[in-house]
Amino acid sequence: MRPTTRQAIQRFWQTANARDWEPFAALLHPEVIYLVPQTRERVRGRAGFVDLFRTWPGQWRADLQQLIADDDQAVSTILFHVDGEESTGISFFEFDTGLISRITDHWPTPYDPPPRVTTHIERY
Amino acid sequence: MRPTTRQAIQRFWQTANARDWEPFAALLHPEVIYLVPQTRERVRGRAGFVDLFRTWPGQWRADLQQLIADDDQAVSTILFHVDGEESTGISFFEFDTGLISRITDHWPTPYDPPPRVTTHIERY
Repeated sequence: MRPTTRQAIQRFWQTANARDWEPFAALLHPEVIYLVPQTRERVRGRAGFVDLFRTWPGQWRADLQQLIADDDQAVSTILFHVDGEESTGISFFEFDTGLISRITDHWPTPYDPPPRVTTHIERY
Repeated sequence: MRPTTRQAIQRFWQTANARDWEPFAALLHPEVIYLVPQTRERVRGRAGFVDLFRTWPGQWRADLQQLIADDDQAVSTILFHVDGEESTGISFFEFDTGLISRITDHWPTPYDPPPRVTTHIERY
């Protein structure tokens, strides 16, 4: 039975963390496109995308924080831990015939707040 | 009739762009929390959150690019145009009794790609 989009993304991160590349690859469309708009980087095709993950250096682990899914799209936020550092990753997934066909990744980093007009903002 | 989470977020951006603050405020929980993790900024309460939008400087417009919604959460990506500049905003929305009770905003900005191990990455 075809997994729901929600189940597919849970499995995506589970198999990635387990370095279990065969079931990981089985979630992907053969012509999957991976995009990082911030760096304008792209990977085309299942083999290349699996290689990106398979060769990622360091002892990394992705902790799934949040998952929102509808019938043919999903988004996850992860806390990505590698070598004592952590960063937040936001991944948008699109599906085609039940397989992940497009992944768009965002890595927001801290910045100093600009001047604000409202007086209702506080820091935490 | 209570709008779906999807309808609520469509209406959120429509009323914001129209500066139509009464129906905008009606979508919000009285104790809504707004968070920007990158700057560690927070706004608490409906009046303060409406003020943040109402006082935002410049001729701005938020173009809704993508919307994913389930029963009690949603995420939108917008292209935020202000004074000839544009940036991508990713907003996570949580709901309580049909009202937006928590908004977490991310503003990813361009950065230079780090060295990559895989040979499958190209620039676009």
